[in-house]
Amino acid sequence: MSDYKHPYRDALFVLNELVDFDKLCAEHGFADANLELVSAIFDEAGKLGSEVLAPLNRVGDTQGVSLTEKGVQETAGFAEAYHQFQESGWPSLTAPEAFGGQNLPNVVGTAVNEIWHSANLSFALCPMLTQGAIESILHHGSDALKEAYLSRLVSGEWTGTMNLTEPDAGSDLAAVKTRAVPNGDHYLITGQKIFITWGDHQMTDNIIHLVLARLPDAPFGVKGISLFIVPKFLPDGSRNDAQCVSLEHKLGIHGSPTCVMSFGDKGGAIGYLVGEAHKGLAYMFTMMNHARQGVGLQGLSIAERSYQQALQYAKDRLQGTNKDGSRYPIIKFPDIRRMLMVMKSATEAMRALALVSAAEIDRAHGSEGEAAQTHQNRVELLTPIVKGWLTELAQEITYLGTQIHGGMGFIEETGSAQHYRDARILTIYEGTTGIQALDLVGRKTLVNKGEHLASLLEEIGQTLSALEASGQFPVQAKALRASLADGQAARQLLLDKSAEDAALAGSISVNYMMLFGYLCGGWLMSQAALKAQALLEANSGDPAFLNAKLTTSRFYAEHLLTRTGSLLAVIQAGSASILALPEDQF
Amino acid sequence: MSDYKHPYRDALFVLNELVDFDKLCAEHGFADANLELVSAIFDEAGKLGSEVLAPLNRVGDTQGVSLTEKGVQETAGFAEAYHQFQESGWPSLTAPEAFGGQNLPNVVGTAVNEIWHSANLSFALCPMLTQGAIESILHHGSDALKEAYLSRLVSGEWTGTMNLTEPDAGSDLAAVKTRAVPNGDHYLITGQKIFITWGDHQMTDNIIHLVLARLPDAPFGVKGISLFIVPKFLPDGSRNDAQCVSLEHKLGIHGSPTCVMSFGDKGGAIGYLVGEAHKGLAYMFTMMNHARQGVGLQGLSIAERSYQQALQYAKDRLQGTNKDGSRYPIIKFPDIRRMLMVMKSATEAMRALALVSAAEIDRAHGSEGEAAQTHQNRVELLTPIVKGWLTELAQEITYLGTQIHGGMGFIEETGSAQHYRDARILTIYEGTTGIQALDLVGRKTLVNKGEHLASLLEEIGQTLSALEASGQFPVQAKALRASLADGQAARQLLLDKSAEDAALAGSISVNYMMLFGYLCGGWLMSQAALKAQALLEANSGDPAFLNAKLTTSRFYAEHLLTRTGSLLAVIQAGSASILALPEDQF
Repeated sequence: MSDYKHPYRDALFVLNELVDFDKLCAEHGFADANLELVSAIFDEAGKLGSEVLAPLNRVGDTQGVSLTEKGVQETAGFAEAYHQFQESGWPSLTAPEAFGGQNLPNVVGTAVNEIWHSANLSFALCPMLTQGAIESILHHGSDALKEAYLSRLVSGEWTGTMNLTEPDAGSDLAAVKTRAVPNGDHYLITGQKIFITWGDHQMTDNIIHLVLARLPDAPFGVKGISLFIVPKFLPDGSRNDAQCVSLEHKLGIHGSPTCVMSFGDKGGAIGYLVGEAHKGLAYMFTMMNHARQGVGLQGLSIAERSYQQALQYAKDRLQGTNKDGSRYPIIKFPDIRRMLMVMKSATEAMRALALVSAAEIDRAHGSEGEAAQTHQNRVELLTPIVKGWLTELAQEITYLGTQIHGGMGFIEETGSAQHYRDARILTIYEGTTGIQALDLVGRKTLVNKGEHLASLLEEIGQTLSALEASGQFPVQAKALRASLADGQAARQLLLDKSAEDAALAGSISVNYMMLFGYLCGGWLMSQAALKAQALLEANSGDPAFLNAKLTTSRFYAEHLLTRTGSLLAVIQAGSASILALPEDQF
Repeated sequence: MSDYKHPYRDALFVLNELVDFDKLCAEHGFADANLELVSAIFDEAGKLGSEVLAPLNRVGDTQGVSLTEKGVQETAGFAEAYHQFQESGWPSLTAPEAFGGQNLPNVVGTAVNEIWHSANLSFALCPMLTQGAIESILHHGSDALKEAYLSRLVSGEWTGTMNLTEPDAGSDLAAVKTRAVPNGDHYLITGQKIFITWGDHQMTDNIIHLVLARLPDAPFGVKGISLFIVPKFLPDGSRNDAQCVSLEHKLGIHGSPTCVMSFGDKGGAIGYLVGEAHKGLAYMFTMMNHARQGVGLQGLSIAERSYQQALQYAKDRLQGTNKDGSRYPIIKFPDIRRMLMVMKSATEAMRALALVSAAEIDRAHGSEGEAAQTHQNRVELLTPIVKGWLTELAQEITYLGTQIHGGMGFIEETGSAQHYRDARILTIYEGTTGIQALDLVGRKTLVNKGEHLASLLEEIGQTLSALEASGQFPVQAKALRASLADGQAARQLLLDKSAEDAALAGSISVNYMMLFGYLCGGWLMSQAALKAQALLEANSGDPAFLNAKLTTSRFYAEHLLTRTGSLLAVIQAGSASILALPEDQF
């Protein structure tokens, strides 16, 4: 098992230098917040993460969860940790004051969530899903529903879940079959949902399920899905007809119960319609877009945890022998150092993109008119990249984490393998990488004729100009110039050729998404270098930390940003050879 | 759980068209062997693999192994399967007739081993290690040792193990501490070895351990290591002082016992010196080079198994909905098809390289003088590429295998996650990817001034000329031309700059190894296209199969061969940013 320590210096650097946090607070409705407050928050959250949640990470993995007569029993120790988490007010960090929240910016919530997910991914899924439920009810629920549910979700007294998937309806939600029949002031829900994260547990008095179902008069497909609140316990205290009937045996996140939920075994679970009928999918997307950035953040978090563990091992493990017989640690070997640098520089780029994207949500909410729309466009453009790219990179990084351990990496007691297993879900849930990539090529590029992407590329071009003007970063400038050109070419190819080839977008989508991920990382790591250099020249800040940032920026440019060239080559190959093989020849 | 079926058509295609198998047999001492015989062998092996070994794959994963009073108890059903495997004569396939072997070419053994590893990786490790023990004794043991041990290892009546690693001696074998003290006609061995695959089991009457240890007068470092045979049961039937004292709890290959072996708890295990004192490491390398190609082959095997499972799921899983409400399988989606094509084309390239390399071993052994040396040079050059590149690709392919399953990929019962977990060991054991890459840049490139690599690049150039001359493969020709240039540049850079930068080779090694892996794959997939085209033009063979080969060759050129560009860019960045960060800033 490994210790975990929040890399608060890098988080503060990103907030201050790349997000311009204090300006964000001043201009967008968070007058009480500033970086000093965030620093104090990091202190407290970091302590809870390191001391309470991180030590339970392996316990969750080895002991898992069980289905008992009274429902799902979570891992021993999780309930106590949850109560401590709840009593310290962490669930309410970003919620509105009207419902007991602390009204802090989303970007602060995101930066703090990094800690929970690093410390204990399985545990942190529970408040993450609750957060999604809060968002949905806040934006789409009636005042009565808000009154009944919000404050206790915000306080963490209750938790929330998302019930979308059914055995025949995964990525294709049009196939949802769960039924909802009107019955007085409520509805009776009948059906089965699978892959329901934290669908049941004993940590809180109630659990609020948000459930997609079809009304009797529902149109065919995705336009006939409605969203319902189905509480585990009804307002009168009686048990609702909704329960976990089995638990999945999974590759990872063993501490997080993944439930098969059965609604209506005894005639119908009582549910309350959220918003208007047949608009459930749109409402669920409110929750999902939030959750998608959240899962991208999990990619950063598990990468950071894996990096810390591998780094410790690389410093401790003596394996080289000097001529005098004394031994030295494996961090002295260039290839071990290369792997650590990939992990570190990628993780810094991921953190930068996660927080910059999270801040755009605050700017969108805190602006009006055209400005709000511009920020919202950026949020929507970045969301599939944050989800897709960060979680794909997390696979590589947790892989390297185990690789650095050599044979010990394959031994479960070491703990590195758990991060590798836990990370594997991230490119699957909340929409697979393929689904994110389709979103990026379709709704986020083609639908707006590539305008939102053009505006991002223009901004990247400004960073490139600044790099070139400074004359101090020839390596980064060269790599960013090439990569920006790759991005422009990929965008243009998609816009030019999609009309004549209906399969093009789907064929190139994942490589297109990865290309823009690396490019965004390069953009922000270049900005980071410019900022670090300016601080160094002003004799401001810790020069060792700032010089390290110059090094990771350069390494990222050389080792990760250069990947866009090969990605563009694959994109340029188009759809032909992907589709050429007859099905019977596979 | 998934079925497994040996892709015998592709294996026969590679043997016939890329290995020129019948010519190899005729010219290199295997007059009785030919492709027709191999085809019959594939039939039998394929049946045993599909019907007996493959169904035990998940049993091994879920039930694992246990340490009991009588030693390690293997998974239920494995002993029966082993006896069937042994009685059918599979262990003796490539061994010399003098010891009861069938004297078939190594490339046939390799092609058949693909089946065992695909069907059941954990099971197949046992005969694979035995094969390594046979090689060591055959090449380095005295006549008395050969007489005593070889025929029963060849028949499979006994199994063999390799005992190298110790807690403080992993990649750095110089640190081996196990001691061997002369005692009459034998030695007394004392020490502990870890990560000993199939170190104990109940399937056979005896187990022959090959153990690295130091004699009392041994020089410091790797030049003081000797190799010993330590049988579990001594010639007089008594139990030797060597036993498994614990089993590792691992990420994968649960059906393969990974033992901590203790030698000499009761005064010293009786061991017999193999060959000369202090030359154990060289002898072990005989075994390891064989084993390294064997582990590379495992990469192919698990990739093939993962592909077959993902393909079945992609054909079965209905998720798209037509306008009339009917549904279609996910293989219709371009991105699913892209992932399947990556898996299929990479697996074909891996098989081609594994078998072409295995055939070079036959050509080296079956030639004399300069010709033998030329083939041996090629074997040694390709070995780290086969081990390193095939096993790294296997990570990506088993990852895609789970990805195609969506949420089901994360559920253990589906079986895809097992392949992903099992594959994870392959880049670690028998020398990590980093160790293979160091071997390639050092002993295999710098030591011979790049001459062996130059000769390979020249041959690739000939294939490129043939592609260009045919005029029918502009896509493959363009990609191979670019990639060959990348390879030439990488080689030249290593040769030119290593002298002035001692850290260069170790810094670029893994990317260098991967570059040459992709290039070798592109070389052989290009040859395959030329051969398939010639057969099509001659109206020979199944046109559907041959056209499929043209498609996978093109896809490989577009999607995998193009990766060398980015790898070269990283190589050109050299060692500076890898080494720049002070240790305290990690």
